[in-house]
Amino acid sequence: MKICKTIKEMQAEVSKRDRNKTLGFVPTMGALHEGHLSLVRLSKSNCDLSAVSIYVNPSQFGPQEDFGRYPRNLERDLALLADNGADYVFLPDNEQMYPAGYKTWVEVEGLSSILCGNSRPGHFRGVATVVLKLVQIVKPDLMFMGMKDFQQVVVLETMLRDLNSDTQIFRCPIVRESDGLAMSSRNMYLSPEERAKALCLSQTLDMGRQMVASGKKRAEEVILAAEDKINAAGGKIDYISLVNGSTLQPQDMIDQDTRMLLAVYIGNTRLIDNCSLMQSD
Amino acid sequence: MKICKTIKEMQAEVSKRDRNKTLGFVPTMGALHEGHLSLVRLSKSNCDLSAVSIYVNPSQFGPQEDFGRYPRNLERDLALLADNGADYVFLPDNEQMYPAGYKTWVEVEGLSSILCGNSRPGHFRGVATVVLKLVQIVKPDLMFMGMKDFQQVVVLETMLRDLNSDTQIFRCPIVRESDGLAMSSRNMYLSPEERAKALCLSQTLDMGRQMVASGKKRAEEVILAAEDKINAAGGKIDYISLVNGSTLQPQDMIDQDTRMLLAVYIGNTRLIDNCSLMQSD
Repeated sequence: MKICKTIKEMQAEVSKRDRNKTLGFVPTMGALHEGHLSLVRLSKSNCDLSAVSIYVNPSQFGPQEDFGRYPRNLERDLALLADNGADYVFLPDNEQMYPAGYKTWVEVEGLSSILCGNSRPGHFRGVATVVLKLVQIVKPDLMFMGMKDFQQVVVLETMLRDLNSDTQIFRCPIVRESDGLAMSSRNMYLSPEERAKALCLSQTLDMGRQMVASGKKRAEEVILAAEDKINAAGGKIDYISLVNGSTLQPQDMIDQDTRMLLAVYIGNTRLIDNCSLMQSD
Repeated sequence: MKICKTIKEMQAEVSKRDRNKTLGFVPTMGALHEGHLSLVRLSKSNCDLSAVSIYVNPSQFGPQEDFGRYPRNLERDLALLADNGADYVFLPDNEQMYPAGYKTWVEVEGLSSILCGNSRPGHFRGVATVVLKLVQIVKPDLMFMGMKDFQQVVVLETMLRDLNSDTQIFRCPIVRESDGLAMSSRNMYLSPEERAKALCLSQTLDMGRQMVASGKKRAEEVILAAEDKINAAGGKIDYISLVNGSTLQPQDMIDQDTRMLLAVYIGNTRLIDNCSLMQSD
């Protein structure tokens, strides 16, 4: 496993590989869990070589957000990546990614200001910019992204398509704890009581799927029941939204393309989760 | 000379070439003149293969600007490019470049809102976005750009560096008519009387260089003399600015890095020109 700390090293490593070998890429912010490792394994089974980046990108955090205390555990992360067979690890610092005089930002209009973007202004601008930079450096054939951050996947797919990138996104299923909680580095913030409460996200999604399976088709009805369920569990709702999975626009009537997206505060920790209401993913 | 009208064709053409051959690229909006052709010749003498794009990019024109009447003469342009030995010509249309649902924009902060960006809001956002798209499609080693659009060169160099592109900009000298007028597709808009008046731009730059050569070092003194000269010729000043050539920030005292930048309306036609005040370019 080759570890690269500078852009130049990373570019040199990937460009000296056999050009016939396909390259998969998993961008992460570290604090790796089974969700991330599932992306690495999907990359390994779909590509000849796999690169992983670990970089806590400051430009996607708001001034009141958890950049400073975001979990970091590089030694453990590197051991997990070695165990899982990553070929390259890219560990840039802020000096590499945003040197003095840095000025360029990528905006995906419309998709970036709704849902999570509404509560986190500038978040998707930071995500789009750093991922474009990483893709330009690593030049992967496929980038593996988890659907837990569903809006992020749609924003980045749109960006890569609009900017004529050669890199395609491979959508990967959400990985859950045995009790249903979607894996997230931020789950570490939860106290034992909060950890129990946090189940309300996945349970609310399950309820939504059951309502649709039993014939409910009006989004409003599902949203009202979901609000009740989250409130009863003591979660604070940021948003509950039923949207078209391609456009992220709200839908009044539920169909094959409808996804249910949740953002809920459990204590001070903001968690997200989502699922398709009529399909298996 | 291979002519490609779709992104797919263009990508296929450049990717099937011998990988050891370097590729130069000249992005244009057509209405080609000797300035453009000098870029093609510089590309040919510095690279193994040369691509030229012709695309009048709507997103860099303001609603009150000359997008509709911008000169177009494709047949003549293609003949000139064939004569000058271009290997590939890329002729995308709006459907190719900005398909339905297009949402992604690139912003180079700070550099895009000053000088020409102040009079043309959104102009450099459109330029940065379309050039990034073209660079992603063509993947040139070098992109040849004329220094007449000096701010554009600085904006695009910053963008390519910030976004970790493999493409470098090759700065090319301004090409002038025999009487000094900088070549521009917009010179076609000038009536014979306006064509005569338009000489005030290059003559004002010459005066600035002479003032500095004779020992003047205060920017204000040069700017005041320049204003008098443009006004006397009947030009309407958009801006006259003495800036650092790297940062585009105004300078009070003239030094090796100072550039004089002009934007002047001659009748309804907005012309730009620039030069270094103490160096040969």
